[in-house]
Amino acid sequence: MPQHFIVIIAGGKGERFWPQSRAPRPKHLLPIVGTTPLLTQTLARVKGLVPAKNIFVLTSAVQAAAVRAVCRGVPAANIVAEPVGRDTAAAVGLAAAMVGARDPQGVFAILPADHVIHDTRAYRADLRVAFAAAAAAPVMVTIGIAPTEPATGFGYIQRGSRWRTVGERELDRVKRFVEKPRLAVAKRYLDSGDFYWNAGMFVWSVPVVGAALARHAPELDAGLAPVRAAFARGQTPAPVLRRIYPTLPKISVDYALLEKSDNVVVLPSTFDWDDVGAWPAVVKHGVPDAAGNVTRGAVVVEQGRNNLVFSEGGHLVTVLGADDLIVIHTPDATLVCPKARAQDLKALIQRVGALKGGAKWL
Amino acid sequence: MPQHFIVIIAGGKGERFWPQSRAPRPKHLLPIVGTTPLLTQTLARVKGLVPAKNIFVLTSAVQAAAVRAVCRGVPAANIVAEPVGRDTAAAVGLAAAMVGARDPQGVFAILPADHVIHDTRAYRADLRVAFAAAAAAPVMVTIGIAPTEPATGFGYIQRGSRWRTVGERELDRVKRFVEKPRLAVAKRYLDSGDFYWNAGMFVWSVPVVGAALARHAPELDAGLAPVRAAFARGQTPAPVLRRIYPTLPKISVDYALLEKSDNVVVLPSTFDWDDVGAWPAVVKHGVPDAAGNVTRGAVVVEQGRNNLVFSEGGHLVTVLGADDLIVIHTPDATLVCPKARAQDLKALIQRVGALKGGAKWL
Repeated sequence: MPQHFIVIIAGGKGERFWPQSRAPRPKHLLPIVGTTPLLTQTLARVKGLVPAKNIFVLTSAVQAAAVRAVCRGVPAANIVAEPVGRDTAAAVGLAAAMVGARDPQGVFAILPADHVIHDTRAYRADLRVAFAAAAAAPVMVTIGIAPTEPATGFGYIQRGSRWRTVGERELDRVKRFVEKPRLAVAKRYLDSGDFYWNAGMFVWSVPVVGAALARHAPELDAGLAPVRAAFARGQTPAPVLRRIYPTLPKISVDYALLEKSDNVVVLPSTFDWDDVGAWPAVVKHGVPDAAGNVTRGAVVVEQGRNNLVFSEGGHLVTVLGADDLIVIHTPDATLVCPKARAQDLKALIQRVGALKGGAKWL
Repeated sequence: MPQHFIVIIAGGKGERFWPQSRAPRPKHLLPIVGTTPLLTQTLARVKGLVPAKNIFVLTSAVQAAAVRAVCRGVPAANIVAEPVGRDTAAAVGLAAAMVGARDPQGVFAILPADHVIHDTRAYRADLRVAFAAAAAAPVMVTIGIAPTEPATGFGYIQRGSRWRTVGERELDRVKRFVEKPRLAVAKRYLDSGDFYWNAGMFVWSVPVVGAALARHAPELDAGLAPVRAAFARGQTPAPVLRRIYPTLPKISVDYALLEKSDNVVVLPSTFDWDDVGAWPAVVKHGVPDAAGNVTRGAVVVEQGRNNLVFSEGGHLVTVLGADDLIVIHTPDATLVCPKARAQDLKALIQRVGALKGGAKWL
């Protein structure tokens, strides 16, 4: 029986929730929703699905210390930092190397650390089905999220013919992956009922990932060979990662493997899901007051509706006569932005970074 | 020859520029416009008009320490604190007592500490004319500001017949004082050319004020008798003020004296004047960037126009995609407010005061 593993991907650049999120303290290390960091919530959500020693966390060098501080219960050796970001295909290859050193036939789930999922029971049930499917056949199991709106910020998965039933759940073959669509296309996808959002959740075995790498991403596969060897010998991976990682091709797992493989299947999720992509998305997880304001910390909103106002450190933030604003106060930086303009945060962060001494705010 | 004196009224509650202004640090103690507190600017503006020992500053107990710190060059005994606020008639009576102890025939100007006036030369010239007029005849000289808009936030002075020419300047008798008018009335005043704004600047002699108090405000006049006696004996005024002040009627000098007197004349000002009544008024004294934003401190405005953004203490304040906002950051409190809603600041401050422990932010 192959063992089961979970690899939590705790990366991210910390831009979308600036000024709370920063390069060394990105979204998954913050209680953007709830009272604990999203990574902590993710660890709690998967607890017991696999033995604790079979949980890995993949992060980046700049965040490693903060991630270790949050990952109580995860063996230190299971927290691995990428020295530089090389996109998700390299991360999946690294995950396969880590898992393969423990069990060459191991089945593992790739799970993002920074999503918000409230229905833990359904999430765990879905993952058990996905593990069973990936253990029973040489397939790549994707978990598809049924779209609730014509979102243009996600990739989509189109289902094809029925693959098989696993644990009373029906899985379909994947007809194709599509990149983030235009709105008109996203609307057609939504109406068709044949498409799911790609949430970056995959369950597959080491041999299946290995074969896909060898066939569809030979350069990456060859580049990772020394990493696999180091893990197989039980060596500390940091030195080899520092040497190898910068040489790896930077490519997404969707593009490198999933789009090119014909053994991908999709399990429709039964849990609620939100990737909480930016500040406005936080609103729907908060508890609004009678005027629709969602606040945290020392905040007064007078004659204002539907604002999101967070304050840290006992500092009083007041909003007078304004609606639909986002106001985020941290000890060294504050953001004021209409909800409708939050997607331009990147432009603001670039301006901040260009200030003399501006790096201290990033 | 009677001596000339200047009494600067440095009162105010510190509400209109919250959160920068606070009860112990109101508008005149802040560099709302320029780089020094408005009181400092006022002292600089009148320097040399009268001997330094003839300059008095009247303030309130809660602000006294901060006012003393700002009033370098003003003799300590000339800075007098009202133990409680009893409106402007009591303040004028107290000023007359202070001045009268030095020179019973003294002529003194009452000048607010918190106005913004850039043309110091014209201001000083106008005050010299007003002093000459008040020294030459038993009149109350008011300095009238020619209105530039139909403001509803000021009292107005209607001019009557020509009184006389003083130093080549023509002064008129005052026909009447009117309280803050409705907009339609203010428009008529503006169109008529016969009205001035009442800026609270008066020049008169101790005997003229004394006679007006005795005739039109006998209760206040009697109440102030022990204060006059204490000043005349050279006593420290604080104990008698603490005892007497709470018993004085609370009434404005306009209502108590000016409206009832027939010896009031008006000198039209030749200087620019702004009482800078609230945050939006600060904008016109700032230097806007190409997008019309007026900023101070560590501020970045991205894709926003015509905002007023002040930050203290090196904290970074960013505004993204918003126009016409006021954002004021202080070390312990921040205000976010559309310019058009700044007049409701009082309601916000009441909410803050009602918070548990909210007094620390007032």
